[in-house]
Amino acid sequence: MFAVIMAGGKGARFWPRSREKMPKHLLDILDERTIIRETVDRIRPLVPPERILIVTGRNHAAELIRQLPEIPAENIIIEPVGRNTAPCIGLAALHVRKRVPDAVMLVLPSDHRIGDQNAFRRVLAAAAQAASEGNSLVTIGIRPTGPETGYGYIEQGDPMPNCGDARTCGVRSIHEKPPLEQAKAFLKRGGFSWNSGMFVWKASAILKAIKQFLPELHEGLMQIREALGTDREEEVVGKVYSAQKAVSIDCGVMEKAEDVLVVPGDFCWSDLGSWDALWEVSGKDKNGNAVRGPFIGIDAGDSLVHSPGKLVALVGVRDLIVVETDDALLICRRGRSQDVRKVVENLGEKGLKEYL
Amino acid sequence: MFAVIMAGGKGARFWPRSREKMPKHLLDILDERTIIRETVDRIRPLVPPERILIVTGRNHAAELIRQLPEIPAENIIIEPVGRNTAPCIGLAALHVRKRVPDAVMLVLPSDHRIGDQNAFRRVLAAAAQAASEGNSLVTIGIRPTGPETGYGYIEQGDPMPNCGDARTCGVRSIHEKPPLEQAKAFLKRGGFSWNSGMFVWKASAILKAIKQFLPELHEGLMQIREALGTDREEEVVGKVYSAQKAVSIDCGVMEKAEDVLVVPGDFCWSDLGSWDALWEVSGKDKNGNAVRGPFIGIDAGDSLVHSPGKLVALVGVRDLIVVETDDALLICRRGRSQDVRKVVENLGEKGLKEYL
Repeated sequence: MFAVIMAGGKGARFWPRSREKMPKHLLDILDERTIIRETVDRIRPLVPPERILIVTGRNHAAELIRQLPEIPAENIIIEPVGRNTAPCIGLAALHVRKRVPDAVMLVLPSDHRIGDQNAFRRVLAAAAQAASEGNSLVTIGIRPTGPETGYGYIEQGDPMPNCGDARTCGVRSIHEKPPLEQAKAFLKRGGFSWNSGMFVWKASAILKAIKQFLPELHEGLMQIREALGTDREEEVVGKVYSAQKAVSIDCGVMEKAEDVLVVPGDFCWSDLGSWDALWEVSGKDKNGNAVRGPFIGIDAGDSLVHSPGKLVALVGVRDLIVVETDDALLICRRGRSQDVRKVVENLGEKGLKEYL
Repeated sequence: MFAVIMAGGKGARFWPRSREKMPKHLLDILDERTIIRETVDRIRPLVPPERILIVTGRNHAAELIRQLPEIPAENIIIEPVGRNTAPCIGLAALHVRKRVPDAVMLVLPSDHRIGDQNAFRRVLAAAAQAASEGNSLVTIGIRPTGPETGYGYIEQGDPMPNCGDARTCGVRSIHEKPPLEQAKAFLKRGGFSWNSGMFVWKASAILKAIKQFLPELHEGLMQIREALGTDREEEVVGKVYSAQKAVSIDCGVMEKAEDVLVVPGDFCWSDLGSWDALWEVSGKDKNGNAVRGPFIGIDAGDSLVHSPGKLVALVGVRDLIVVETDDALLICRRGRSQDVRKVVENLGEKGLKEYL
């Protein structure tokens, strides 16, 4: 079994901690460890380092290698440009298949937070077993905790208790980010999971599906396959990538494929999509403050304070996100952290590149 | 004419900019210049530097001399401990009288903000003329702009148009910080000024009044007078000061004295008592933000941002006070900056002396 970690994120929503040179997964916003370090540590009981592949952009590779010294450098796969998840997964599948033609691959985002590591690994192991038994595309579902509109929803079909795990089901349909009313209806009806963006399948199975649903991408991948390991590899990957459209594996393949299974998981998952999400999953004091760094609160509560190096005093305020770095300070109303990207856009427009 | 600047303030309300070693008047929170520098510059057209005396605590003297190189070092009068304004003014009066027995002295706080410098000097000059013509104790009044409960109120008596200035009045009564209802009644009735804490009198006149109303203080001052300029001066001042009760010149003398005049002033005055007061007097952008330092606001307004060295981004917040220094960050609801002293107390209780 191989693991493929997709580490192409830019992480503008975690500004000012995340920067162009230092996206979210390379940061330690959650823990003493960086997020990618946690992601790797989490799957190490299932997959040895020489079978962990990481797909990333060129200017993040050096830092990634520094943070993950046990991963062989040849396992770092460079994407010349970001084209969403379908090309990324296709490229990784080529590498996996070249090494072990019939291998199962776990596809994992680099930057999620998982509360219950053991439960997570049990679900992955079940999904891997299901994937190894045929050519199914197996998704990891997440039991919804509310009518979130930021995730895709997977409608579970018939139970497939003989596929890996008692929880494994067929998939009736996949709905990309629904409006609130629809999300509420899904929850009321039951039998829906969030799409976690984690998948398990044979490399050969996903390449076959790409051939069927994204033939142009498949053609490009075949060109890359010819060049893999030769001195033309970088040039061909660059050419193929720049010609591809950006497309997610969800829209491009999963929503159309027939043989899809889901293993619903329940392991305290968060995609850590924003500072608000970080507050949600963080431990809090009795006033609801999630604090990193020296802190004094006078009648202050329900806030995230992320200031490892500097004393922060809050007086008479609630529901704030406060993030302090060496050169910038963010103060954001809790619930508004999606708008942090507007700050990043604004900095770009003003040419203040040193803050990007 | 002499000027005596009282620079004994601790300025805990301007934490984290103000510190034990660096009280408000030594800071540049308002301008490129420090507040004491502005205070001195403001009276220079009226009083030459060799006649400006500054009363301060021992551990602020060196910084004061550094900031005010034109003031002779012997004009810095050290108070061994703070005992409020009456002992401070008495000590300064001794120094003034020793140099020029019949001199008029302006008594000025070190840390106020004056918007209209020319109007201010015209009022001071008129008050000085009134003081020079007899033994009156002349206070500078401020035309009230609202029913503030943080100031004393001076009830004006009969006009004294022959005393210095057409606006000069007798004083009917002085009311220390009144409750809100009373303050409103004063404003409705008219003929009240705020007590600015600025006074003008002959040194001999205030010493005579101290003798009458604060005889113990006067006794101590007479001991100091004997020792002035001898090698016993420091020792005697230390002994006398430690034996005195803390008492303000307002409570100790002004509220009891007979021959009191007031010159009402109207020169955009603020005692800069807190970060809220600083926001009030600061220039603001179209969203009501008073900003010092690089700044990006996304749907943010009516806030004070004081961060000379670091980019601050506000997202979806209003009515905040944000103050950033090298080692600490304050975020306070606007209107709550009186509670900043609670932060300072809290730091003291926790033994976090490095932040005090």
